Amino acid sequence: MKITHIEHIGIAVKSIEEQLPYYEGVLGLKCYNIETVEDQKVKTAFFMVGQTKIELLEPTGEESTIAKFIEKRGEGIHHIAYATENVNGALKELESKEVRLIDRESRAGAEGLRIAFLHPKSTGGVLTELCEHPE
Amino acid sequence: MKITHIEHIGIAVKSIEEQLPYYEGVLGLKCYNIETVEDQKVKTAFFMVGQTKIELLEPTGEESTIAKFIEKRGEGIHHIAYATENVNGALKELESKEVRLIDRESRAGAEGLRIAFLHPKSTGGVLTELCEHPE
Repeated sequence: MKITHIEHIGIAVKSIEEQLPYYEGVLGLKCYNIETVEDQKVKTAFFMVGQTKIELLEPTGEESTIAKFIEKRGEGIHHIAYATENVNGALKELESKEVRLIDRESRAGAEGLRIAFLHPKSTGGVLTELCEHPE
Repeated sequence: MKITHIEHIGIAVKSIEEQLPYYEGVLGLKCYNIETVEDQKVKTAFFMVGQTKIELLEPTGEESTIAKFIEKRGEGIHHIAYATENVNGALKELESKEVRLIDRESRAGAEGLRIAFLHPKSTGGVLTELCEHPE
């Protein structure tokens, strides 16, 4: 697997609107996209920082995994996403190395990416996503 | 404050040695530096991923803040560090915006950087570091 850069860092928040003054007013970043991913029950807001996006994740329902994360651990950093060229190929390689996967095949994520998650049990407690940009 | 990129992502681990097979053997990253920061009671290991470093943080004593973090929350993502040009200038600006600071002045961090931490109370639960590269 060849990782080129950190595609994004996912941050769980109760309310995107409440966090905008910090990300825009304090850090001076610019929110360039807000998008809802229905099947993951999250609203997402994106900020570009060099090569990497900050992705704020707001739950849109109580059964959202983000709502459960916030309930258990509070708001904060949720996951790291690495950019790679071929997520399905990477997943096959990871399976052969006995890495525990959440997704065995890539699926559609926000911003048109193909994504898959690895299980924190195999990654030292870090929820880890692989992302592939569509050509 | 002008943030140029994400300087690093800090990840709390019990043992750097135990995590190397994942970061090197699975993700295919290369550890280019291992350094102990005595006054923070941590051993750090660095991997470059595009513009950004992954910084593994292993406690060197029980009174290390990393040891306390792991005890409370388990291994996982500990903080985000943004690169900026003038940390002390940024801290003054943040104080004027009533952002709660952990460090009111920059101090020496790993790899020769000047660093300062912001308090998670002011950053939506995200322990946040500012870093300045020496000229």
